[in-house]
Amino acid sequence: MIGEQIYNFAEQLWGINRSITGNGVRQTLQLIQRHLPNLKIVEVPTGSKVFDWEVPQEWCVDEAYIIDPEGKKFCDFKQNNLHLLGYSIPFAGYMELPELTEHLYTLLDQPDAIPYVTSYYEKRWGFALAHNEFSRLKKGKYYVFISTKHFHGSMSYGELIIPGNSKSEIFLSTYICHPSMANNELSGPVVQTQLGLWLARLKERRYTYRLVFLPETIGSITYLSRNLKTLKKNVIAGFNITCVGDDRSYSYLPSRNGDTLSDRVAKHILHWTDPNYRKFAWLDRGSDERQYCSPGVDLPISSIMRTKYGEYPEYHTSLDDLNLVVTAKGLNGGYWALRNAIDLIEKNHFYVSINLCEPFMSKRNLYPSLSTKKIDNDVNRIMDVLSYCDGFHSVIDIANNLNVPAWDLYKTFDKLVGENLIAKDDANQI
Amino acid sequence: MIGEQIYNFAEQLWGINRSITGNGVRQTLQLIQRHLPNLKIVEVPTGSKVFDWEVPQEWCVDEAYIIDPEGKKFCDFKQNNLHLLGYSIPFAGYMELPELTEHLYTLLDQPDAIPYVTSYYEKRWGFALAHNEFSRLKKGKYYVFISTKHFHGSMSYGELIIPGNSKSEIFLSTYICHPSMANNELSGPVVQTQLGLWLARLKERRYTYRLVFLPETIGSITYLSRNLKTLKKNVIAGFNITCVGDDRSYSYLPSRNGDTLSDRVAKHILHWTDPNYRKFAWLDRGSDERQYCSPGVDLPISSIMRTKYGEYPEYHTSLDDLNLVVTAKGLNGGYWALRNAIDLIEKNHFYVSINLCEPFMSKRNLYPSLSTKKIDNDVNRIMDVLSYCDGFHSVIDIANNLNVPAWDLYKTFDKLVGENLIAKDDANQI
Amino acid sequence: MIGEQIYNFAEQLWGINRSITGNGVRQTLQLIQRHLPNLKIVEVPTGSKVFDWEVPQEWCVDEAYIIDPEGKKFCDFKQNNLHLLGYSIPFAGYMELPELTEHLYTLLDQPDAIPYVTSYYEKRWGFALAHNEFSRLKKGKYYVFISTKHFHGSMSYGELIIPGNSKSEIFLSTYICHPSMANNELSGPVVQTQLGLWLARLKERRYTYRLVFLPETIGSITYLSRNLKTLKKNVIAGFNITCVGDDRSYSYLPSRNGDTLSDRVAKHILHWTDPNYRKFAWLDRGSDERQYCSPGVDLPISSIMRTKYGEYPEYHTSLDDLNLVVTAKGLNGGYWALRNAIDLIEKNHFYVSINLCEPFMSKRNLYPSLSTKKIDNDVNRIMDVLSYCDGFHSVIDIANNLNVPAWDLYKTFDKLVGENLIAKDDANQI
Repeated sequence: MIGEQIYNFAEQLWGINRSITGNGVRQTLQLIQRHLPNLKIVEVPTGSKVFDWEVPQEWCVDEAYIIDPEGKKFCDFKQNNLHLLGYSIPFAGYMELPELTEHLYTLLDQPDAIPYVTSYYEKRWGFALAHNEFSRLKKGKYYVFISTKHFHGSMSYGELIIPGNSKSEIFLSTYICHPSMANNELSGPVVQTQLGLWLARLKERRYTYRLVFLPETIGSITYLSRNLKTLKKNVIAGFNITCVGDDRSYSYLPSRNGDTLSDRVAKHILHWTDPNYRKFAWLDRGSDERQYCSPGVDLPISSIMRTKYGEYPEYHTSLDDLNLVVTAKGLNGGYWALRNAIDLIEKNHFYVSINLCEPFMSKRNLYPSLSTKKIDNDVNRIMDVLSYCDGFHSVIDIANNLNVPAWDLYKTFDKLVGENLIAKDDANQI
Repeated sequence: MIGEQIYNFAEQLWGINRSITGNGVRQTLQLIQRHLPNLKIVEVPTGSKVFDWEVPQEWCVDEAYIIDPEGKKFCDFKQNNLHLLGYSIPFAGYMELPELTEHLYTLLDQPDAIPYVTSYYEKRWGFALAHNEFSRLKKGKYYVFISTKHFHGSMSYGELIIPGNSKSEIFLSTYICHPSMANNELSGPVVQTQLGLWLARLKERRYTYRLVFLPETIGSITYLSRNLKTLKKNVIAGFNITCVGDDRSYSYLPSRNGDTLSDRVAKHILHWTDPNYRKFAWLDRGSDERQYCSPGVDLPISSIMRTKYGEYPEYHTSLDDLNLVVTAKGLNGGYWALRNAIDLIEKNHFYVSINLCEPFMSKRNLYPSLSTKKIDNDVNRIMDVLSYCDGFHSVIDIANNLNVPAWDLYKTFDKLVGENLIAKDDANQI
Repeated sequence: MIGEQIYNFAEQLWGINRSITGNGVRQTLQLIQRHLPNLKIVEVPTGSKVFDWEVPQEWCVDEAYIIDPEGKKFCDFKQNNLHLLGYSIPFAGYMELPELTEHLYTLLDQPDAIPYVTSYYEKRWGFALAHNEFSRLKKGKYYVFISTKHFHGSMSYGELIIPGNSKSEIFLSTYICHPSMANNELSGPVVQTQLGLWLARLKERRYTYRLVFLPETIGSITYLSRNLKTLKKNVIAGFNITCVGDDRSYSYLPSRNGDTLSDRVAKHILHWTDPNYRKFAWLDRGSDERQYCSPGVDLPISSIMRTKYGEYPEYHTSLDDLNLVVTAKGLNGGYWALRNAIDLIEKNHFYVSINLCEPFMSKRNLYPSLSTKKIDNDVNRIMDVLSYCDGFHSVIDIANNLNVPAWDLYKTFDKLVGENLIAKDDANQI
């Protein structure tokens, strides 16, 4: 099961302290590069203008912890990188519990979870911890120590182009800006890495593939600001890859348009992967499709997910881990749903029948020589497929019309091409 | 409550004997003119050709009554103008009950109601009375006296143009040809008068407003025959205003097209005014939309009503009164539904996002500086609205997509315009 | 009841041994010619190339039977032509039961039925018989005698053109290649013959009619290969006529397009003939629409049927007979559904209103002179019809909008034309 390899890679990336900038991101990209040697790591200097935004300062963490009145260290960044508020400024000093409490973040309704908290665009320091741990804190003097740096550095992202026969592109995007959380986000980069491996090894690719690993929001905005023209010209489909690691459900979130090739493929694949998959709406969005599908950008990007961000209790807490939430089986399902979707885009041709009227199948041994009352389903399927080979129905359309998964028809199309009964005619392809 | 002012005006107009021509119409128009001084009263001479029709003779009533064998007067026009058949010819003479009965109209299934009966295009005389009163009539000689006149005069209607920034027009039409009945019709002219007052007082109007008060059918046909070219060129939306005075339900009747701006506005407003509003079909029509939406005329006119004509038991009888059927509260609801609809047409812009990608909201204090698991609904709404500002979604479309009343979004649009994040772009406006 | 005449003609054709070629087809066509003297019988030589196919050899049967060990003749072709495998090669010789059994065809689940079996494109001999009869066969020597001939002859079909005012054509097709079975197929040619009689006798026809009687599949392919250009240019609607003889249900099978004039007519007529009619899908097809609607051919052909082939137990067996399955009443229903459909195509005009606004109906005595609370339904219907006479609604569209059968409106349209209120305007006709 390929999910196990993916899981192993997730374990390697688990402990790294990722944020929107900093060494955690670089380290993550370098580990991905070991599998995908052609991955280009791009550095964008602090202060670069990207549309309405500006690339923020780089952030580095040395150490961070609190010492309680009894001298015991807690909220130690080394123990769990979620303890430190994301983008926390440095601080060192003593204070009483009430003052400290103003800098502590907990979740009352999930008292065992460390919440994930960040403050990218306002200077703050703070710690996150389980509410149960917080409740046990006693009166007295606490010592806070945060050694972090903000400086004019750069923001890093990774980009990999895998060329195909056509300049038309499939765009895959995932993000690498969250510390140790598994379904959101680690499942995304590890599944995308595995997809990159598969794509790079294919003997032939109909389309060119563009894979990016970048910080959410600021990363995708930066990438768009530098590549918009090319993307708008070439990208015919793509997916934002996130939350593909648990084994509880399959989910779909549409592009803003709602009926792009990515949407049609995603709906087809998910329907035949899990008929009870969850369909979300554009208003439920929350990841980089917010940028990719924004007015004027309008890329055909949808999301194929397992359990969506915000829809599972462990989301954005320390409970979103590699033991209970994300599993090899969950990653395997996420990987195959996306791989099947990409495979279908590759195979989604329009065909035309070479003959007028039904061809004489008997001479090709594709029709029973004895005509009786019984109907042969395989023969029916061939004739049904043929009846839609008019240059206006794609493979997805035909599979939907026949109410079968597209992959059940790949051999039929190959056989009909082999018998010289149909030919590809992608002139009507969008 | 503005409904009370409207109700008071209805009381003033109540006793006037309106018909399709005559002094009752003129008197009604003059009273409306007191509120809307710019109202132009137009007289169209008897015999004028209007499309396939001809303006009929003017009709005046002096007095009309019957005296029973015991000398008692009944069916007295002065007591209730519904007693006299509309457009009755003059008559004076004695007759026995059986002969008289041929000229009497009652309702068996509503024995307390005087029915509303007219004979515009065939010469007749007659009286309408409650069936219970009719049943008590005894054998003997009756004296009938009807002093009316038909003569070459004119038909009157009122027209008010309230100019706006654009030559494009909103067309409001109501009718003034029924004697003392409250929901159908008096609620129409009194609500339209109040709307005219509101519109005239607005500091700025995006659109020009055209308000007409005219006899149903012959009046609207006459008006169209004289203004068709202008109306077809300028009118982008409008409403036929009738049955807007009771408090039992809200109703919608579509234009023939069914999906004009008027229809989309009416459905949106009514849905958020009363989710159980009644949706009628074009085949249920029965007022001046029959002319405004007829083939070749095709104006975008729908109807926003309270309880529709023909759908309440008191309809077209003396029971449709200002005590039980029409109330200040009912009028208030009808007025606000229409005013909200007009307000929405004024505000129904198309907006475009000024930035590519989501703008950097934090620097505008439109985004929380601390990112936690909780989602702020106000922030979400702003981002949702922004995501549809692509020049192809109107305010109505966006409100429908977000499943909220448009009025909940007016402030959001204003704020986004104020922050220079979106701009009006009505090029796609129909 | 016209169904009785149709039934009588079916009895005449019943015993003939039809196949895709041979004298049975010719004999059938000659009997049809007695009713339709202008029917042209066309012979296509064996070996003619027709698209991907070739016209097969002609097949003639002299006699065929088996003699059992006790000297008793059974499976006698003269008793039931279904006993002989269609296109059986000649054979004469003795054999034991096990060897014979390899050439016998029965139906386990319908032990009293002789199944219909053919082998057009592979050389075989064989017999079909009831499984109950087969079970009684004893060990011993059997004598098989089959006297048939395959030779270079021709395939026959019939074609009848009935000219109309327009070159645009209605295409009716039925097949004549099955031996003695009643609903599938004999009902088809006999109903089509009766439709031909009716059409030929009409004083005036708006459209030209093309009726073909041909062997299924190879016949329609042959016909298309010789007439494709003309058919594609002229045919605006048509029906494949089959299974129109039983009285159990009505059925509809769409064209591949699904929304041609033929489809809209068929759905309208069937809805008002039997609201519970069965709607099949393109994937349920199985007759000559497979050719007529194939990619690149794309004729607007749907099917109006009684109980569809494959959907009744007697299908393709000796039980599909003229006693139980097909009845005069069943044929009558099939005939009228098709005739009503053709009649509707003839009458399916687009009309435009001659006046702007509603016309003044009172002066034409089309409106009650006394206006009361009651609504006259006939008047309403006239006004409703008029309101849709805008040149964009066909008679079918208007009938669908009014939710009435089109035939209920024919008089209304005639009256409105007679009053010079509407005029035909077929410019928008597809």
